[in-house]
Amino acid sequence: MSASLTYNSYGKSKVRLTKVVRTGAVHTLFEIDAAVQLEGDFAAAYTAGDNRQVVATDTIKNTVYVVGKENSFDSIEQFAVLLCRHFLKTYPQVSGAKVELTQSNWHRIAVDGKPHDHSFVGGGPQKRICVSKLDRHHFERNLDPDLDGGITGLLVLKTTESGWADFHSDRYRTLKDTTDRILASQVDAVWHYNTANPDGSAAYDAITNAALKAFATTYSKGAQQTIMDMGNAALAACSEVSSIDFELPNLHRIPFNLEPFGLKFENDIYVATDEPHGLIRGTVTRS
Amino acid sequence: MSASLTYNSYGKSKVRLTKVVRTGAVHTLFEIDAAVQLEGDFAAAYTAGDNRQVVATDTIKNTVYVVGKENSFDSIEQFAVLLCRHFLKTYPQVSGAKVELTQSNWHRIAVDGKPHDHSFVGGGPQKRICVSKLDRHHFERNLDPDLDGGITGLLVLKTTESGWADFHSDRYRTLKDTTDRILASQVDAVWHYNTANPDGSAAYDAITNAALKAFATTYSKGAQQTIMDMGNAALAACSEVSSIDFELPNLHRIPFNLEPFGLKFENDIYVATDEPHGLIRGTVTRS
Amino acid sequence: MSASLTYNSYGKSKVRLTKVVRTGAVHTLFEIDAAVQLEGDFAAAYTAGDNRQVVATDTIKNTVYVVGKENSFDSIEQFAVLLCRHFLKTYPQVSGAKVELTQSNWHRIAVDGKPHDHSFVGGGPQKRICVSKLDRHHFERNLDPDLDGGITGLLVLKTTESGWADFHSDRYRTLKDTTDRILASQVDAVWHYNTANPDGSAAYDAITNAALKAFATTYSKGAQQTIMDMGNAALAACSEVSSIDFELPNLHRIPFNLEPFGLKFENDIYVATDEPHGLIRGTVTRS
Amino acid sequence: MSASLTYNSYGKSKVRLTKVVRTGAVHTLFEIDAAVQLEGDFAAAYTAGDNRQVVATDTIKNTVYVVGKENSFDSIEQFAVLLCRHFLKTYPQVSGAKVELTQSNWHRIAVDGKPHDHSFVGGGPQKRICVSKLDRHHFERNLDPDLDGGITGLLVLKTTESGWADFHSDRYRTLKDTTDRILASQVDAVWHYNTANPDGSAAYDAITNAALKAFATTYSKGAQQTIMDMGNAALAACSEVSSIDFELPNLHRIPFNLEPFGLKFENDIYVATDEPHGLIRGTVTRS
Repeated sequence: MSASLTYNSYGKSKVRLTKVVRTGAVHTLFEIDAAVQLEGDFAAAYTAGDNRQVVATDTIKNTVYVVGKENSFDSIEQFAVLLCRHFLKTYPQVSGAKVELTQSNWHRIAVDGKPHDHSFVGGGPQKRICVSKLDRHHFERNLDPDLDGGITGLLVLKTTESGWADFHSDRYRTLKDTTDRILASQVDAVWHYNTANPDGSAAYDAITNAALKAFATTYSKGAQQTIMDMGNAALAACSEVSSIDFELPNLHRIPFNLEPFGLKFENDIYVATDEPHGLIRGTVTRS
Repeated sequence: MSASLTYNSYGKSKVRLTKVVRTGAVHTLFEIDAAVQLEGDFAAAYTAGDNRQVVATDTIKNTVYVVGKENSFDSIEQFAVLLCRHFLKTYPQVSGAKVELTQSNWHRIAVDGKPHDHSFVGGGPQKRICVSKLDRHHFERNLDPDLDGGITGLLVLKTTESGWADFHSDRYRTLKDTTDRILASQVDAVWHYNTANPDGSAAYDAITNAALKAFATTYSKGAQQTIMDMGNAALAACSEVSSIDFELPNLHRIPFNLEPFGLKFENDIYVATDEPHGLIRGTVTRS
Repeated sequence: MSASLTYNSYGKSKVRLTKVVRTGAVHTLFEIDAAVQLEGDFAAAYTAGDNRQVVATDTIKNTVYVVGKENSFDSIEQFAVLLCRHFLKTYPQVSGAKVELTQSNWHRIAVDGKPHDHSFVGGGPQKRICVSKLDRHHFERNLDPDLDGGITGLLVLKTTESGWADFHSDRYRTLKDTTDRILASQVDAVWHYNTANPDGSAAYDAITNAALKAFATTYSKGAQQTIMDMGNAALAACSEVSSIDFELPNLHRIPFNLEPFGLKFENDIYVATDEPHGLIRGTVTRS
Repeated sequence: MSASLTYNSYGKSKVRLTKVVRTGAVHTLFEIDAAVQLEGDFAAAYTAGDNRQVVATDTIKNTVYVVGKENSFDSIEQFAVLLCRHFLKTYPQVSGAKVELTQSNWHRIAVDGKPHDHSFVGGGPQKRICVSKLDRHHFERNLDPDLDGGITGLLVLKTTESGWADFHSDRYRTLKDTTDRILASQVDAVWHYNTANPDGSAAYDAITNAALKAFATTYSKGAQQTIMDMGNAALAACSEVSSIDFELPNLHRIPFNLEPFGLKFENDIYVATDEPHGLIRGTVTRS
């Protein structure tokens, strides 16, 4: 039998950096979970155990902390681009770098209504993410890396103004039409920037708020339509974004059957479930 | 060999109720995860497979939904007490009931600065909990159930005004004194009510805010001292509470060793970790 | 307002030790997750930030590794007892120590049917645990620590020879009797040793096998009866154990309703669920 | 602003089927977690809330159970192919179907050394997976679906015969060479079948055993080389597979620094960690 290595990449995941920027009494906090993957001239490590070209994953980890120390950045987008460029610049054997960052959701504690200088409390379960990719072709020509921003795990629920009706019927259908149901989801959205130097924090806030407003204020004929509504609102809210992908699990709230107890369901008592769940995907792109 | 049943209890866990209370256009949302455990005259089911006295866990589950339908409540504390009393009242074979409720953390979506009537977004990872326990002795005499409130998973971090110094030294110590470190935790607190009819929501808000303020504004000589500070603040903030237990994991942020790279640690670059973690416990009781 | 500290303890959790014992070519592997909690004369740290008596949790962590290095042990039970005694012996300010150990489930890889000398593969999701507790009163008098062994997360399922019938009926019951259902659980069992120097590995194997055999071969009228059957079998199998606690979630497999599709349920097609789940507890004690 | 829908798909995830096949006294158990995604003529649901073409995700869920009832299958591979073909055959508006199945790892309980007829115990944490994809083009021409098998979460560890040396050095490197370290991982492998009707169970067993043997018996100069060794062994062991992807997290066991305690590290006392971890990927393809 004969076989060969037809793909390889490697890197370090779950590199957890806490960076504190002290501007006088006011401290800014970044907590970032980094994953780096490198492609390049590393086949000999697989085929011959020859590691001479390989930048150890421990070295990659050190690099995240050192680059974090030696550079200022205002957003994870900036840091991801810095890291991508670093790996291409430092290692000729690297043909491509992918850096994925997840930022923990810390807010300043409000003390007597005023945001505290150096104390923080965890925000919602949602986290801000970004992904930067850069290959040698782009790097050598001074072209921009590919850059995405995003939000993961944004929990939303509306108790009314949502239905699911007039869908396909056949032998396998048992679900009835409804024009008043609960719609709940844990939204993941990834947007593509049309620049490698966006105002990432402004984009994150504008897109999150636009999507939440669309979710809240628009009647939903289905998670599909809600994706379109949120996507249109997101693109309208942020000119630095060219497209946005949504992935919406439909976390069903099922009417509890009250009949056996002589009671009537009045859109009030539901069974909350996580599984099974619908999973609806869509990409909305600026024309 | 001879052996006997020396303890037994049973019940249903992870009963997930969504209740919507529609007061005109404004909807109130309760999402509750319930666990019920019953003690009583159930030994025959263990020793002889005689289930006649056993209220099926499926029946317990139905009960959570039906009691949720047939009763109004403003807080999980009220609902827990209602459920405890229901089980004692309905089933003479039950000698004790324990009801633990966990409430999901939903906030109204702010649309143009105004809380929305029926649309919600997930709040911080922290959840509100309560535990009610009632035995037949108390029930028959019309005495109150035992009632605790609490918060679980409250993430906090301060970037300064925290130290750890002058602690015990011996052969096993390697950690150096510091007067400026990051203190991070995921606080669990459980408070004991001195009434079975507290204003649970007011207690939750007052205690959470008092603990956060104490955490933010008081220099910490250790997680131990911070527990005492938060406990004193919590008891001062809520007269319906007689004691409070804290459990603080110390989620270490470890200075990254920058020396090998010719750089200097300036309280700026840390490794975030979850394990191993200190675990500090204390109970503060009103005198 | 006046308040005081009425309870305190502290320690280190998630201390993860890998110990390799090299006996010639054959290596023995221990992977242990340790949690240590100490009680004692530590109130000043809470009330005054006076840490002089406090053994840092970092020191506790070091101790786990150093005691692991300096001592031989054949079982986590031995190691837990060693650690308890160490803390009482070394620190007069400690009035009690609790050590909880969880052992990862590694098996030797079978190569051509023969267990390999130094390569391992993960076994079932179940883990072996133990808990040792020792207070100063017992330590000073050279009395034994309290010692429990256990297993956590043992997944079991039987496709028949299980029923649930003749249980209590009332308004809240909707479940029908059945004499042929699937019984599935993720068993937690904790047994109490009648010695501080048991053969822990023999106990673990004997009890696990006895419980599995009882589960497999005995008709179950309910999880309650199965607990009693498994408990009797466990006590008969291991004379070093005086009692055993079981906690059985009832992980329901619900018959899928095939009627709408013109098909018949023949104990063949089920919906697997984790929540809600029954939770059945019982302790069986040697007389 | 103008925007359009540029991608869409939807389906149901976490559909959990338990199927019992009763062949006389001997029962065969399948526990399968299914995820189905459909592509096709569904844009109107997004852009206009017109759901008439949409097969509800609830209907998809029903289908998994009904197809599971009406068909015999010996492996998840067969069931995945059946489901793909069903969706293409039944719904002309579907242009492509992707079915991902994960099978829980149940083994027969050994009672007195003999596998039991109808009672099962959970095996290792690893699970068997498969993915089938079929589009209308292939379906109409009676061409085979694309079919992958795999294993996820296979825990492995070797205490010696593993090193990491002679890798790239620069300013960011701090790790020293070693020729004797622990190598631990939680292997994910996905293999591509060269047939749509493989003996999936034989493939799973042969590939798993071959990979484990290669891991155990071959000196590892790095996770990269180990991937190549396991890949070559897997392809040699199963002729129905044309390529195999590996993803190996390097779950570091870090030598515990015993020097401060006057002790010597002898490849015996390690700190077990999950994060950060290396992540090494490679695909080995039959030539």
